[in-house]
Amino acid sequence: MERVDLILSGGTVVTMDDTFSLYPDGAVAIGGNHIVAVAPREVLLESCEAEEVLDCSDQYILPGLVNAHTHVPMTLLRGLADDLRLDVWLMGYVMPTEREFVNPEFCRLGTRLACVEQIRSGITTFADMYYFEEVIADVTADAGMRAVLGQTVLRFPTPDAESYEVSLARARRFIEAWQGHERITPAVAPHAPYSSTRELLEQCTELALEFDAPLLIHIAETRQELEDSLKQHGRRVVDQVADAGLLKAKVLAAHCVHIDPAEMRKLKVHDCSIAHCPTSNLKLASGIPPVSAMLETGIAVGIGTDGPASNNDLDMLEEVRLAAILAKTAANDPTTLPARQALLMATRQGAEALFLGERTGSLEPGKLADLIVMDARRAHNMPHFRRSEDAIYSQIVYAAKSTDVAHVMCHGRWLMRDRQLLTLDEAELIEQAQALASRVDDFLRANTGDVLSKLLTVTQGMARGESFEVQAKLVLQDESALEQLLGFEDVDVLKEVHYRQYDTWFSFEDEADGRLRYREDDELDADGQVASTRSRLTLMRLNKIDSYGTAVRLSHSRFYARADRPLRFYREYFRPSAERALEKDRRRWHIHYQGVLFYINVDRLTDPPGEQTYLELKSRTWSAEDAKVKAARIRDMLDIIGAEPADMVLADYPELHGV
Amino acid sequence: MERVDLILSGGTVVTMDDTFSLYPDGAVAIGGNHIVAVAPREVLLESCEAEEVLDCSDQYILPGLVNAHTHVPMTLLRGLADDLRLDVWLMGYVMPTEREFVNPEFCRLGTRLACVEQIRSGITTFADMYYFEEVIADVTADAGMRAVLGQTVLRFPTPDAESYEVSLARARRFIEAWQGHERITPAVAPHAPYSSTRELLEQCTELALEFDAPLLIHIAETRQELEDSLKQHGRRVVDQVADAGLLKAKVLAAHCVHIDPAEMRKLKVHDCSIAHCPTSNLKLASGIPPVSAMLETGIAVGIGTDGPASNNDLDMLEEVRLAAILAKTAANDPTTLPARQALLMATRQGAEALFLGERTGSLEPGKLADLIVMDARRAHNMPHFRRSEDAIYSQIVYAAKSTDVAHVMCHGRWLMRDRQLLTLDEAELIEQAQALASRVDDFLRANTGDVLSKLLTVTQGMARGESFEVQAKLVLQDESALEQLLGFEDVDVLKEVHYRQYDTWFSFEDEADGRLRYREDDELDADGQVASTRSRLTLMRLNKIDSYGTAVRLSHSRFYARADRPLRFYREYFRPSAERALEKDRRRWHIHYQGVLFYINVDRLTDPPGEQTYLELKSRTWSAEDAKVKAARIRDMLDIIGAEPADMVLADYPELHGV
Repeated sequence: MERVDLILSGGTVVTMDDTFSLYPDGAVAIGGNHIVAVAPREVLLESCEAEEVLDCSDQYILPGLVNAHTHVPMTLLRGLADDLRLDVWLMGYVMPTEREFVNPEFCRLGTRLACVEQIRSGITTFADMYYFEEVIADVTADAGMRAVLGQTVLRFPTPDAESYEVSLARARRFIEAWQGHERITPAVAPHAPYSSTRELLEQCTELALEFDAPLLIHIAETRQELEDSLKQHGRRVVDQVADAGLLKAKVLAAHCVHIDPAEMRKLKVHDCSIAHCPTSNLKLASGIPPVSAMLETGIAVGIGTDGPASNNDLDMLEEVRLAAILAKTAANDPTTLPARQALLMATRQGAEALFLGERTGSLEPGKLADLIVMDARRAHNMPHFRRSEDAIYSQIVYAAKSTDVAHVMCHGRWLMRDRQLLTLDEAELIEQAQALASRVDDFLRANTGDVLSKLLTVTQGMARGESFEVQAKLVLQDESALEQLLGFEDVDVLKEVHYRQYDTWFSFEDEADGRLRYREDDELDADGQVASTRSRLTLMRLNKIDSYGTAVRLSHSRFYARADRPLRFYREYFRPSAERALEKDRRRWHIHYQGVLFYINVDRLTDPPGEQTYLELKSRTWSAEDAKVKAARIRDMLDIIGAEPADMVLADYPELHGV
Repeated sequence: MERVDLILSGGTVVTMDDTFSLYPDGAVAIGGNHIVAVAPREVLLESCEAEEVLDCSDQYILPGLVNAHTHVPMTLLRGLADDLRLDVWLMGYVMPTEREFVNPEFCRLGTRLACVEQIRSGITTFADMYYFEEVIADVTADAGMRAVLGQTVLRFPTPDAESYEVSLARARRFIEAWQGHERITPAVAPHAPYSSTRELLEQCTELALEFDAPLLIHIAETRQELEDSLKQHGRRVVDQVADAGLLKAKVLAAHCVHIDPAEMRKLKVHDCSIAHCPTSNLKLASGIPPVSAMLETGIAVGIGTDGPASNNDLDMLEEVRLAAILAKTAANDPTTLPARQALLMATRQGAEALFLGERTGSLEPGKLADLIVMDARRAHNMPHFRRSEDAIYSQIVYAAKSTDVAHVMCHGRWLMRDRQLLTLDEAELIEQAQALASRVDDFLRANTGDVLSKLLTVTQGMARGESFEVQAKLVLQDESALEQLLGFEDVDVLKEVHYRQYDTWFSFEDEADGRLRYREDDELDADGQVASTRSRLTLMRLNKIDSYGTAVRLSHSRFYARADRPLRFYREYFRPSAERALEKDRRRWHIHYQGVLFYINVDRLTDPPGEQTYLELKSRTWSAEDAKVKAARIRDMLDIIGAEPADMVLADYPELHGV
């Protein structure tokens, strides 16, 4: 009789071992951190005895689930902003919030909340990529879970490092500090090829090789990423990182939505693994990855929830189910990725994908005691057919819920018993998370509450400014008036340019927000060909337009900056209540009039087509006194061209043309 | 002060009304079966008072969810057989089981179990199509739920009717009996266009119009259905049923995976609605329906779980989430089908799809009191952002679980309070369902346990037989021997045919199962062109082959029948342990030798290519005495052609050619 510490007795033992052994009335014996025996109940009870025998009748005993890709502190950003373009979500909400809030305390709280949710949903092991990974390691170790934790390295400043060299140094310190821990595997995580330089990828690889640490990275998540890689590097994403030597490391590549068979073979040859994140891929409209082809190539493919800001939960059973059914439609074949294989990806194969296959992922003597016990007799999961062994996997994958998980053990230690968490204070964490969310709400209300705040938030780090202009506009009845002005003795022409301008005007329900203009300027050469293009945003407050005398106005642009995103981004981010588009032909002269810089614009509306040609005279200004002086100069020039009061125009182009 | 029966107080009231009113600290007043008032808590408490005030702080109060398509008794077939081709699943497992087990008791038990699961997941209203719908109505009414119930009509015999006329009569009686019930809307449900005749569709439409009853039907679920419709009717599926006048009825069309914009407009013009079943469509690899285009066309689209045999659960929140994220990937745009719109499809718009929009689907004064209360402060759904109203819909759609549902009310009556079911005995149902499943297991074990049983199960209703043959085979060294036999005085040649034969041999782990041959026979005309094709299955038991003298064998085919399904069907259904393929050229003569019918085959293996030509002499037999007589005749003919003992062959072609 062997003495063991604990026997789980009765219930269906789903081992997920090499031969998929099932014990319908089985038992598992645990000694210390390890599984000592797995067998039919009666057989095991004849050879083992234990202090404690836990009755698991009418339950499934399974290996703990492996979450192959996530960003745990992002539980705190769950539901912050959804149903948006990836860039609006990231640049408009997540990145500004992260810049403001992500610090060690944030990571501590977010990781704890994620551990609660993961334990409740039957996860014992996960792979993470985020900032302050040493804090995440600390919390995960205390919570009793197993994890591969990757300290993120980016070529941009991050919440935990002002440069990539500092990131790398952090990663090295982190790996040194946590190497050899019984449950934490430290890793380095260059965020993605597109957010890295070749040098950064090479140095991350060297670091990983030096410590034999895993290297976590996002690969080919979106079609855009693939297209950019082809354009910038002339090759596909996996080929690009392979060239940098990255595949020499133990690489766990998340997503791989847009990889082809040759890239799969390359990953397989280098024993790299993949984390498949079906909910995230669907929700962000990234695409449907070729999972069955990956599996056929022999790659270890795990399943990941991705971060809760893009999922929005950490429910592995939901991911397993979605992985199974999505692959069928992707392959146009309902026999693709059957339940058993899907569950394998979330257990033994998931552990292999995290380079932990020798230690966890299945219920086998000698492996670590990472396991879960799920209630099997719930209404949503009845009845049970037992004619085919496949039925058990079907029940678990297609009908069981994460809330069926009753007990969770990791490394021989109970983390949850009868749905009571043993290593974390759930109620307190919920309170703290809510307090943090209220602060984030306040911050975003202040920073995205009106159009200007949103502009400032989304253009952080970009050159931008505020401008005041004095200007007059008139209908140009006769081009000779313009020639007269340009030829006038006090006028020096400094520069002449020709543009085609595409303006989109956003207006908002609250008129105090002003109007936002998105302008694309095509500069034309002498042959009328586009020589260069630039886009900019200008926010104008209507109530800031004052008359200076009868014809000259002071206009105030509260904000202007280069527009580095496409129009659709701004449309979705600012959600204007109305939108108007205008195209015009603009000839522009920079002149000195009596030594003062003015601009002359000669504009003709092309879409909607306009009958009139307009002439604008304008100059930048910076004080009331200066504005008064320049307004007088403009009136002089109006005299030179013989402008009649009737020719003067006060309205902007959108009003003039009723678009 | 208005007296009401009950006030739900505190918590976030998510009304789903026309303007999507939200009351973060709201209240709902209920009088009798109806909602009397919905307002901010303080406002409502000033104008209403009630015996009972239920505190719903930290909870969401929502309209009850509407499950727009299901087959409730099929809970009892949940997980019976998964990850199979639709036809293997249907013809190999579900239909044989339904033929044996579906009766009123089955429907009673299955519906009760489904009501348990649906109430637990927050569903108050559902649309069903099955057999014995009067039993389903009875049980649903007792369980307190609301439903549109369609009595299925098929052109084939069904478990509840031997012909479609009987089905139609049942449907009429059912509608007459249940019309005007406060919660049950009886309907007629022609199963699908492909399982109907035009006459059947017309008569169902007439019945629906006569009683102003809804008409439920499956439309364009698979690509195959669309292709068959184009081939057989020269038009797409919606066009086909429109021609039969079906769209004059109040049609709720399930699936509509393969419909085009013109079909959508046709459905819209006729105020037909659609039930979108995302899990079922993915799991059966039916495809991804164009949901955003349907919504843009203005069609009322509800969301359905489909039956639990193809889902495998009745979890509406999972369906809503999947509908939302799947539409994004289908449209390649993450802003498609935002959370609020997805939830609308499961509430107000779902009710509209069931033609119940005036009565339920939103929390508004005057509507029936169909509502649910969900816990909001669970770890998997924290924290809560309140900056944007969209955040609440995000939480419910992307992170909430059906197990968060705490209370459920339908028609002003509590069906569940604090997760305790009030109208159904869950534990007893679970016991009964399991007892039924064990009987189904026994039946399927007996009927699909060995290859012959599976054959008998899957070829039900087909002509088939058992045959014994005496035969001899030899290597034909010289074609003149054949001519000699055909020209022999006692031989009359009756017929000569020329085939190309494609044989696939399945063998099984248990040799006692025998070998199953799937044969495609291409009959060739004089020019070598294919004149006709037939496929058949033959099951041969190897251990039934006996020698009759040195060269003549008795061979026993336990089973032969026409093979009406493609090879892939049989491969998946029978799951052979090994498979061998052979192609051969066969010339065949039917002859009388001394007045007895014999066949002469002259075979040449073409793939894998064989060097030899074989000659077979064989005849059917039916008794040991007859076999002995025919064996002697065969030996005579062997003498005529001068066969040497060394030329004789005993093995079958697969062994001869080592494939």
